[in-house]
Amino acid sequence: MNRSTNTSEVQQATLYYLGPQGTFTQEAAVQGQTIISEAIGIECELKAVERAKTIVDCVEQGHGWGVLAWENNVEGTVVPNMDALVDARKVAGFCKLSLDIVFDAFVRPDHAELTEIRAHAHGLAQCSGFIHKHQLRPVAASSNAAACRDLAINQVGLGPSICGPLYGLDTLQEAVQDFQAAHTDFLLLAQRDQVKELVQKCASRIRSENRLPAFESVIAFIPLQTGAGVLANLLDRVRDAGLNMTSFMSRPIKGHDGTYSFIMTVDAAPWEAELKRLIVDVIDRGVWVKTLAVFPRTPRANPPVDQWMLPVGGMTDTGHGTDDNFSGRARKELLW
Amino acid sequence: MNRSTNTSEVQQATLYYLGPQGTFTQEAAVQGQTIISEAIGIECELKAVERAKTIVDCVEQGHGWGVLAWENNVEGTVVPNMDALVDARKVAGFCKLSLDIVFDAFVRPDHAELTEIRAHAHGLAQCSGFIHKHQLRPVAASSNAAACRDLAINQVGLGPSICGPLYGLDTLQEAVQDFQAAHTDFLLLAQRDQVKELVQKCASRIRSENRLPAFESVIAFIPLQTGAGVLANLLDRVRDAGLNMTSFMSRPIKGHDGTYSFIMTVDAAPWEAELKRLIVDVIDRGVWVKTLAVFPRTPRANPPVDQWMLPVGGMTDTGHGTDDNFSGRARKELLW
Repeated sequence: MNRSTNTSEVQQATLYYLGPQGTFTQEAAVQGQTIISEAIGIECELKAVERAKTIVDCVEQGHGWGVLAWENNVEGTVVPNMDALVDARKVAGFCKLSLDIVFDAFVRPDHAELTEIRAHAHGLAQCSGFIHKHQLRPVAASSNAAACRDLAINQVGLGPSICGPLYGLDTLQEAVQDFQAAHTDFLLLAQRDQVKELVQKCASRIRSENRLPAFESVIAFIPLQTGAGVLANLLDRVRDAGLNMTSFMSRPIKGHDGTYSFIMTVDAAPWEAELKRLIVDVIDRGVWVKTLAVFPRTPRANPPVDQWMLPVGGMTDTGHGTDDNFSGRARKELLW
Repeated sequence: MNRSTNTSEVQQATLYYLGPQGTFTQEAAVQGQTIISEAIGIECELKAVERAKTIVDCVEQGHGWGVLAWENNVEGTVVPNMDALVDARKVAGFCKLSLDIVFDAFVRPDHAELTEIRAHAHGLAQCSGFIHKHQLRPVAASSNAAACRDLAINQVGLGPSICGPLYGLDTLQEAVQDFQAAHTDFLLLAQRDQVKELVQKCASRIRSENRLPAFESVIAFIPLQTGAGVLANLLDRVRDAGLNMTSFMSRPIKGHDGTYSFIMTVDAAPWEAELKRLIVDVIDRGVWVKTLAVFPRTPRANPPVDQWMLPVGGMTDTGHGTDDNFSGRARKELLW
């Protein structure tokens, strides 16, 4: 009896995302809905909220799960969302999903001559080539979704493909963004005491698709001592544990300029021996530690860095013993 | 004769900033104008351009100097601007300036009943408490400056204080932002071959104000080998050189997911012995290096990290040998 009550409660689960309807975050939420259905066996309904902070609060209060933008490969980490997870009492991420950022251009079926283009300021900035080519006057909106919803007959709207069916618009042209390889990673959030079980369920789903089962974790460290070498000592322990790190950043502790936390993404789960040993070791040395997320590791490129990938300028080893112009180039590239 | 021609050319120097007029970047540009006048003895005129990339291009082509948003203590590093400096051929930063982000609320002198509030979407988000308190309907604009310029009689506009005199508006209330300690750091940009001289002139100005003369540098590193420990080995050399690092982040090389550059801020100038030795050492080991900026070190807080500054939750050393609940807390905070 108890059990069936629990099940029926869980079946009414809600997945909170940053609204309004028709945003990229809704596209991510739809992806999250599928993962939760396939890996966990629960159908959840989507609910749009107005602020990212509200998503964390709803999960914290046990109202459901959440989907939160984490990192864009052009704009970088979504820092306020990362801060929100550092500050959350009992919420962590259990799955990472990746969304290609593709803008389509829409018009109303009854459109007149097109003279304006409407989108969020970021959307306008990311499609500047298209706007310039068609000589349209940019009009800023509070979101791409709102732009498409409130489109006038002389306007082109920019937004994710779901805006077409959602607002009854015709697609004028697909994929009109300037940069073709932009993507945003999102985290699915749950209460901390559910995370380990959820991660393992998500990992089984990946395993059954014949991919490598393994985990990644995002961990926050705050050394209570400051000074030269604190970070090097911390990373020595990561290296000596043989752990591969794929992302790292320092971040001022909010409201305390001059103090730092370090946020690291590492190829292991916190319950695996190497990472567990590392964490105990640094805690013993007076470092504050909190795990922000654990998720199944997704396949990724790991190309060698070739000369053609390097930015222009800069310097690397060219056998400078015999390089007559070493000091001239050093003056320019290194500002000696 | 030649000399006076040069001087008169230089006196027509331009400082490029991201427009339109009335943005926070213009406030920063005005600060930059003062520094350039006092430290370098040159009066430059301000010129607003539409895109950050254009600022770098104008400096690159020798048309003048630039001011570029670098980091906000709430939003983090302005990643596209950092990427633009990594990719620039012959532009680097020579001075860092810091601007408090303060939003004032403006109305037209002939205003009617106030029912709406108008600003850039970020401005609306950063003043949500004020908007909520006064029950105003938010209206998004392409920039805070445009919002204030085009204000209707039933609207409150949000923007930096310069918007008042600039657009003939009355100040309804000062400092209406939610977070009172937000600030944005900007870099002044010049051609690389001028940077060392300009930094030293800016440092003399600081020295004459009786502050500690010293430098900071922002340096990009790309290890050509990847794998566990590459970063730890790099940071060991920074520690062993006794250099204090104040900011660090990894960043995918643009368009090459899975490859990384590392951007470090360190308390030294590249022409000082310790940093110079470090750079030669890592170049010899096959690391690509480029200096992005050098600037006089400004005074900053360096408080110890106390318990009350730590985020909620997490774990640190509590003599867990005798802590009965260590494993329970570890399960929750570390996701063991």
